[in-house]
Amino acid sequence: MNASQASRTELKSYLKSRRDEVETVLWELLPKPDGMAARLNEAMRYPLEAGGKRIRPLLVLIGADFCRGASQADLYAGRWWPEGEDELRRALLMTACAIEMVHTYSLVHDDLPCMDDDDLRRGRPTSHKVYGEAMAVLSADALHTLGFQILASVPERFAERSYYVARDLAVACGYPGMVAGQVVDLEYEQKQGTEEVLEYIHHHKTAALIRAGLTMGARMMGGAGRDVEILAQAGMKLGLIFQVVDDILDVVGDTAALGKQAGADEKLGKLTYPALIGLDQSKARVNALRDEIFALLEPEGERARVLLDITTELVEREA
Amino acid sequence: MNASQASRTELKSYLKSRRDEVETVLWELLPKPDGMAARLNEAMRYPLEAGGKRIRPLLVLIGADFCRGASQADLYAGRWWPEGEDELRRALLMTACAIEMVHTYSLVHDDLPCMDDDDLRRGRPTSHKVYGEAMAVLSADALHTLGFQILASVPERFAERSYYVARDLAVACGYPGMVAGQVVDLEYEQKQGTEEVLEYIHHHKTAALIRAGLTMGARMMGGAGRDVEILAQAGMKLGLIFQVVDDILDVVGDTAALGKQAGADEKLGKLTYPALIGLDQSKARVNALRDEIFALLEPEGERARVLLDITTELVEREA
Repeated sequence: MNASQASRTELKSYLKSRRDEVETVLWELLPKPDGMAARLNEAMRYPLEAGGKRIRPLLVLIGADFCRGASQADLYAGRWWPEGEDELRRALLMTACAIEMVHTYSLVHDDLPCMDDDDLRRGRPTSHKVYGEAMAVLSADALHTLGFQILASVPERFAERSYYVARDLAVACGYPGMVAGQVVDLEYEQKQGTEEVLEYIHHHKTAALIRAGLTMGARMMGGAGRDVEILAQAGMKLGLIFQVVDDILDVVGDTAALGKQAGADEKLGKLTYPALIGLDQSKARVNALRDEIFALLEPEGERARVLLDITTELVEREA
Repeated sequence: MNASQASRTELKSYLKSRRDEVETVLWELLPKPDGMAARLNEAMRYPLEAGGKRIRPLLVLIGADFCRGASQADLYAGRWWPEGEDELRRALLMTACAIEMVHTYSLVHDDLPCMDDDDLRRGRPTSHKVYGEAMAVLSADALHTLGFQILASVPERFAERSYYVARDLAVACGYPGMVAGQVVDLEYEQKQGTEEVLEYIHHHKTAALIRAGLTMGARMMGGAGRDVEILAQAGMKLGLIFQVVDDILDVVGDTAALGKQAGADEKLGKLTYPALIGLDQSKARVNALRDEIFALLEPEGERARVLLDITTELVEREA
């Protein structure tokens, strides 16, 4: 195993541990499947039970760590939190869960018959296949609200920070962001688009929420000004990487590894980078974005190292 | 015209003026129908353009006025705001708009083919009839988020209050409130329910958000403790009145006046008060709730008078 492989293994093990930490809080924040609306609560939990990479919650924690200047060595050695900061830890983990709730709501609605009409998500039948369309719509609506409810329930000491965090989340997932991307994405199915349109879709549909992960973490940590600005810039590029790699994997990837139908984009006539500029140019675009992130973050030194590791990981991911 | 009619006319004119005030801000907060996602923005505006009573935003203002002890005489004479409080005024009007965005999103989703499958709302074709199902789902999602974005954009001085306001809104419209009511409502279509189930549906589906209107206004005014508690109790009862009267009007009302198909509940086999306990008992229930609100609020004197007037109005409404 060479140095780069060793570092990659270390990152993966770090991310897995932090993912576990987030999930403990995630299950606690979701309603238990009992009472009069037990089936609603069950349907809210279902799409989250399939696992997933939890990229957005992880980026919340990574954004916060960047702001407080945590070192890669400390983080990889399991020293994740400053002593005596239990309420701050709670607030950050709740913020991480909030963005995952909102991301998950969007997946459930995207999969509906009137949208992408997907039967499979993360290797399991989609929500409307299991619970029916009405419950899929409503349980996702409930996850959407729950994201904002969680932000409005962090320890009261952080009430003011929560206001800025909620704004980042809302702008990223609402009409100025994700929903606009989804609308234009649907409009351009089976229709010739330009690179400008494709950038618009990717920026709005995916990158805005990835970016929000980093800035929400920063703001809940009390970060502002230049720190948030750097994270916002890096986050947008990272979000584009994430989506272009997704498009590439849809062409070259494997259904089993992806947990969703490979080739789905082509079948739907989606406007994607591989469809528009070809696979090689798409890969070149990913590498260029990675270089831009490195140019932006390397001057930040130690505190940027985990974010750079995760950038490399997202460039090289195969599922 | 007798004294009671005169007072009713005065209330109606007051509500109309304040509705106009809310609407000015409402149109300003909605995105303009231009740019790449112009059609999304247009679809967001569409269900709000049909007008409606704007009960929830009005209750936000009424809850705030209760907290600051505004007199009925001042309010009916057009003295609505304390001098030099432009930012507070702005924050309250934004709060009023936020709840209307969330209420409207829920109507658009309720009308979908997989839910109540309604063609008509406020006398106009429903969103999915005009824009298609995908856009109806997404534009309502965008209104849902916009509600929370607005709360996270009130003047920064009120950031901390906004956190409590957002919590009230989220609890009222999410899994602990409105969505749970909607799920149980759908489950009991064509199925025999008990009065307990019906109370659950009405409390959750309708009353929780009506109550939130009053408490959100109070909290944005800086109210807390006993004031919020009284408003919460009165708001829940007012919400029940609103829904039971809705059920009654669905039986005895007129399609043209209602702006929606009369008799729709019976056709869907909805669990309603008239269906369960008959019209006379339903009306008796409404009157009993009104008496409870009067018993609760009359001791509050002058500051409760507008809320009592609106209670009477909602008991007697015919559309």
